Amino acid sequence: MRASDLVDYLHECRALTLAELEAMISRETACRGVLYERMLEYPMRSAKALRPAICIATCRALGGRLEAALPSAAVLELYHNAFLIHDDVEDGSERRRDKPTLHGVYGVPIAVNVGDAMLAFALGPLLDNTRTLGVGKALRILEVVHRMAKESAEGQAIELEWIREGAFDLDDADYVRMVEKKTGHYSFIAPVQIGGIIAGGQAARLDALARFAAALGVAFQIQDDVLNLTADEGRYGKEIGGDLWEGKHTLILMHAMRSAPEEERARARAILRKKRPPYAGASPWPSEALKSEDDVAFLLALIRRHGSVAHAQGEARRRAGEAVTALAAAQSGLGPSVHLDFLSGLVDYVIDRDR
Amino acid sequence: MRASDLVDYLHECRALTLAELEAMISRETACRGVLYERMLEYPMRSAKALRPAICIATCRALGGRLEAALPSAAVLELYHNAFLIHDDVEDGSERRRDKPTLHGVYGVPIAVNVGDAMLAFALGPLLDNTRTLGVGKALRILEVVHRMAKESAEGQAIELEWIREGAFDLDDADYVRMVEKKTGHYSFIAPVQIGGIIAGGQAARLDALARFAAALGVAFQIQDDVLNLTADEGRYGKEIGGDLWEGKHTLILMHAMRSAPEEERARARAILRKKRPPYAGASPWPSEALKSEDDVAFLLALIRRHGSVAHAQGEARRRAGEAVTALAAAQSGLGPSVHLDFLSGLVDYVIDRDR
Repeated sequence: MRASDLVDYLHECRALTLAELEAMISRETACRGVLYERMLEYPMRSAKALRPAICIATCRALGGRLEAALPSAAVLELYHNAFLIHDDVEDGSERRRDKPTLHGVYGVPIAVNVGDAMLAFALGPLLDNTRTLGVGKALRILEVVHRMAKESAEGQAIELEWIREGAFDLDDADYVRMVEKKTGHYSFIAPVQIGGIIAGGQAARLDALARFAAALGVAFQIQDDVLNLTADEGRYGKEIGGDLWEGKHTLILMHAMRSAPEEERARARAILRKKRPPYAGASPWPSEALKSEDDVAFLLALIRRHGSVAHAQGEARRRAGEAVTALAAAQSGLGPSVHLDFLSGLVDYVIDRDR
Repeated sequence: MRASDLVDYLHECRALTLAELEAMISRETACRGVLYERMLEYPMRSAKALRPAICIATCRALGGRLEAALPSAAVLELYHNAFLIHDDVEDGSERRRDKPTLHGVYGVPIAVNVGDAMLAFALGPLLDNTRTLGVGKALRILEVVHRMAKESAEGQAIELEWIREGAFDLDDADYVRMVEKKTGHYSFIAPVQIGGIIAGGQAARLDALARFAAALGVAFQIQDDVLNLTADEGRYGKEIGGDLWEGKHTLILMHAMRSAPEEERARARAILRKKRPPYAGASPWPSEALKSEDDVAFLLALIRRHGSVAHAQGEARRRAGEAVTALAAAQSGLGPSVHLDFLSGLVDYVIDRDR
């Protein structure tokens, strides 16, 4: 599938998913007022909506119906955006999808509450699945959602603990474990599993799809970290270098830290212990040491000197290869379809995307 | 039931619930490390554990088994504590159960994450209910949990919006609607509904129990607000007058604002717009106006002058009367039991408690 067709497929799924999400919310009599407008703020901002598309494509590639997958696809988008709201609070991020973060607009209390409301709301359509898909499939989907929410919280906890401890003595395997939990599960593995369950796919096929999704997810996250350092800000929608300001534990930074001589590593470690300066307009906390432009430039130079971006890109390509192999196993016996083409096209897209 | 027997019943249920919660967590192979220790921090602090006791008592009063109710009772305690963690972040509270709040100890990012992890984890035992209680009861319990989580988030949203807008032109009905959603649903209504479902109670009985729980919940919350102004700090476990420092919308403060002449109301409104001073040790934000001891003393005097605590206590007693009537309807045809005695004893306990 060409990149432009893949983007069209994403757009189509996104429009269907958002229409479903709005319909779900408008069906609820209690859903009046600002809370539910705010629940839709992140989903309505410009975004790929990758997760619902993967769920829908998997369901349809296996012969399932679009209508059967849409509510669960909308729930995946809701979970994703709830996680983003809370992650933005936890990471102190300023921008999300070309606009200020939700806590930047309304403050931390409202942002935490809106995320909680989205998580609470998401259970409804999953319970409604009992009527449309039958109890068996609905319960299996709930099990997948339970697992993905738990994995995501655990992954986030691992990363927050690394930040708290200033831990950088970490290797690629630590990173992969963290991102598989934090984003891989809910962004890739759960969407293919849920799409596959709705279509009534066999266990062996679902297992191969999960392997495909796991490899794709790691490749995607590494590429996300690469883009944070190298992308064009206008297209990317987040601040360039934001990961360095936040001291985020990326495969790239971990590689640079491992590769650097002790003296450089000590300086980098001291920089990474400093906080990022507070939001524009907020008063600084005078007692804390803050990162400077020079600090971030030093980290960037360290990364360049040790070829850490190239190392990460190589790792992403290796995972992409694993995804191709797993998808070949997953699709055995399936007829050709645009949906299968989309899943297979995702591998190149994840590696080559510029936003 | 005498108050001391009621406290014994609470203690017994609490011990069983915490043992269940610890067993649940230790069964999970992934549940190692600091995240799961932190999930248990609030539950393990000294607390009444009212919600699991209400769930267990309702189940047993209707002839159900303790073992059938324990996992759901533990889940209710988990939800409660997750809500507390996020509420403490949202309200900027300093103390919880005689100790610093979770975000006070670990920071906001980790506190938000621990709450999310607890919410994610809670879905597991509710899905396991399909095996122990059957699919029908398990799904009905999930519907109740879905509703309670949504109501709680909506109630919290209403209160946060009042704070954001500085709204104090509110009457008792606004307050009751907010607290029924924010705490009444998950603290009282859901526990009796879940206990009743597990025991196989009939619809009419469950409806009467829900009316009992709704009235009890409002009485409890009003009494909570009364205690925040009048209790003995050592027994109460939270800071006295903390609600005034936070500018919390209590029935008491709303009554005082309605009753005060315009000049006093204007001064109170100006005070309530000010933030509370930040935590000890944190640097102040120089640009913001902060409440002073004199400000809080003025609010307290306003409340005293207008008899607002007495008004609230009268309202709490009226609701307690409604709870007694509803419980009489709910228990028709049930044999006497210590569990029914506990539920009926709760009405006096809620009004007379000192912590």
